[in-house]
Amino acid sequence: MNLRIPGPTPCPPQVLEAMRKQMIDHRGKEFGQIMLQITARLKEFYQTKGDVLILTGSGTGSMEAAVANTLSPGDKVLSICNGTFGERFADIAETFGASVTRLRFELGKGAELAVVRKALEADPSIQAVTITHNETSTGVTNDLESLSAVVKGFDKFLMVDAISSMGCIKLPMDAWGCDVVLSGSQKGWMVPPGLAFVGLSQRAWDAVAKAKMPRFYWDFKKAKSNAEKGQTPWTPAVPIFYALAVSLELMAQEGLPNILARHERVGKAAREGAKSLGLTLFADERYASNTVTAINTPAGVDVDKLLAILRDEYDTILASSRGEMEVFRIGHLGFVTEEDIEKVIEALQLALMSMGVITCST
Amino acid sequence: MNLRIPGPTPCPPQVLEAMRKQMIDHRGKEFGQIMLQITARLKEFYQTKGDVLILTGSGTGSMEAAVANTLSPGDKVLSICNGTFGERFADIAETFGASVTRLRFELGKGAELAVVRKALEADPSIQAVTITHNETSTGVTNDLESLSAVVKGFDKFLMVDAISSMGCIKLPMDAWGCDVVLSGSQKGWMVPPGLAFVGLSQRAWDAVAKAKMPRFYWDFKKAKSNAEKGQTPWTPAVPIFYALAVSLELMAQEGLPNILARHERVGKAAREGAKSLGLTLFADERYASNTVTAINTPAGVDVDKLLAILRDEYDTILASSRGEMEVFRIGHLGFVTEEDIEKVIEALQLALMSMGVITCST
Repeated sequence: MNLRIPGPTPCPPQVLEAMRKQMIDHRGKEFGQIMLQITARLKEFYQTKGDVLILTGSGTGSMEAAVANTLSPGDKVLSICNGTFGERFADIAETFGASVTRLRFELGKGAELAVVRKALEADPSIQAVTITHNETSTGVTNDLESLSAVVKGFDKFLMVDAISSMGCIKLPMDAWGCDVVLSGSQKGWMVPPGLAFVGLSQRAWDAVAKAKMPRFYWDFKKAKSNAEKGQTPWTPAVPIFYALAVSLELMAQEGLPNILARHERVGKAAREGAKSLGLTLFADERYASNTVTAINTPAGVDVDKLLAILRDEYDTILASSRGEMEVFRIGHLGFVTEEDIEKVIEALQLALMSMGVITCST
Repeated sequence: MNLRIPGPTPCPPQVLEAMRKQMIDHRGKEFGQIMLQITARLKEFYQTKGDVLILTGSGTGSMEAAVANTLSPGDKVLSICNGTFGERFADIAETFGASVTRLRFELGKGAELAVVRKALEADPSIQAVTITHNETSTGVTNDLESLSAVVKGFDKFLMVDAISSMGCIKLPMDAWGCDVVLSGSQKGWMVPPGLAFVGLSQRAWDAVAKAKMPRFYWDFKKAKSNAEKGQTPWTPAVPIFYALAVSLELMAQEGLPNILARHERVGKAAREGAKSLGLTLFADERYASNTVTAINTPAGVDVDKLLAILRDEYDTILASSRGEMEVFRIGHLGFVTEEDIEKVIEALQLALMSMGVITCST
């Protein structure tokens, strides 16, 4: 089965093998060593001298954790939204009592620097900015380096959902001045879902010290004090730690520059492949993501039927739309090669031919 | 290695084997079937016609979820506390803004019915009661059947931490009138940590409809509406679902009455075994837990050294104290037989002999 959704992604065989290891004491020496080793490696990939905490939960859990640990009810937050996940970050901040302004951009486009600058100028009381680095729903990667420079020009607190970008798309956390950077195990990290990661700058810890939103399970201070002992405050999803230790070793062997270059190649293969079939891309190519590609559903095509044919006849799992966009999506992150994507494009061609949507090989 | 802590517990080989299965689409048919099958089985073990939700997180996560979904800031809560986990439930309710009264009982004793009755009589404004069915820190099982009758006599909302009891110690949720009943995958269910379960009565759903504490990741309504489609609102810890499907099948084959009887036998084996070495039990035997036994650290013994000798020389992992109690603990729940516990007692005897604490075989 060629599983090509934007997470969970397939796992390498060595990673799956690690998952079958028997349980150990999560407050014992062996777990402590795994925890310390993983944390050190994650910090390398985050390119941060700050902290990277490991939480048991999904990426959305880490978004809630980021909000509840660094904000107080009534805090003014500017949420940059150009898709489902940008809206989700805003929803969470609102649910926990922040005063959220949503700065919306056209779906499929990147957030515009000038508009963000204007919004920050217009309201000096804004304290924090949330942004989705890679918007999985539309296949857009926002220009975080430039956006961060704008946000930092106004000295605002910057929270980044990098759930589907960290480890696959360039994001040096410290160099780009990000305060909170989120990721999830089932994305670029090539392990099953169950863990989320939170990178925190010193400024983030200062925010934690003042923040008054309620948190217990997600409490960053408890996570940090426990991590220093090689533990987690609550019982962690132990097997995903086993898996992560193996996958981070594989990633270190490949090296971050090579991993980023591979994602560039597979991203390009997905876009060029789709276009070679006469399909059109949802995202403006200037902002095209190298981890997920959203393809416009051709006129008259029942997308559910297309995805079912791909699954049942061509062993290929693609993702449906997450939102109102009339698209289907190819995930190409983590354990993925250009060959995997070529197979997706071949399957897509055959499925579209069987549906009578395209008539000849290209 | 004989891992005998109160979770994570060892997993049967078939369960570990299931953990290595490749990832699938968590919004696809196959996952939906697993989800529906697991949910139906969990309801059988919970003995409820209500709902059982599956959340990705630890047992503590489910406690936070229970609080945030059913209470509003300012709600008056009576927290029955006779150990670390009873206090934790109270801490969480307080953190989220409830007005908590802690009704404390001596550690190692069960909560007393008359005292609970008096507390409920004394303050009619109490809306909800939290209780730990099985207090893992002290090895006490509270008499939930009787306590629930008292609480229900006052028509209060009852939230039960059954994290280390459900599936191993008798707890028919509906028959005993419990509104929220929590459990965790790494306890009696014989699977790795990563999932938590929440049983909910109709009254619990009525509480959810009125509750104003903030929740997003843990939102029960989102979990329920997604579960009806065989999905979870956020990306779930997929491999633990694979494992749980296998373990629930094993549990169904054994049958709940046999499982409960086995836990009675291993509980007794742990207590009798400890006493046969001249050790004393922390918990009043009238309330002795069949899933965890806390043993008083003999005078003059360095408990860390004892646990290290057990681990390094006798391949036996026991748990240290969780709190101020001078104890160490044997977990005997889930994948456990009397033989496993006999081996623990043998190891304990040899370790204590090597430390000069006991001098002859018994």
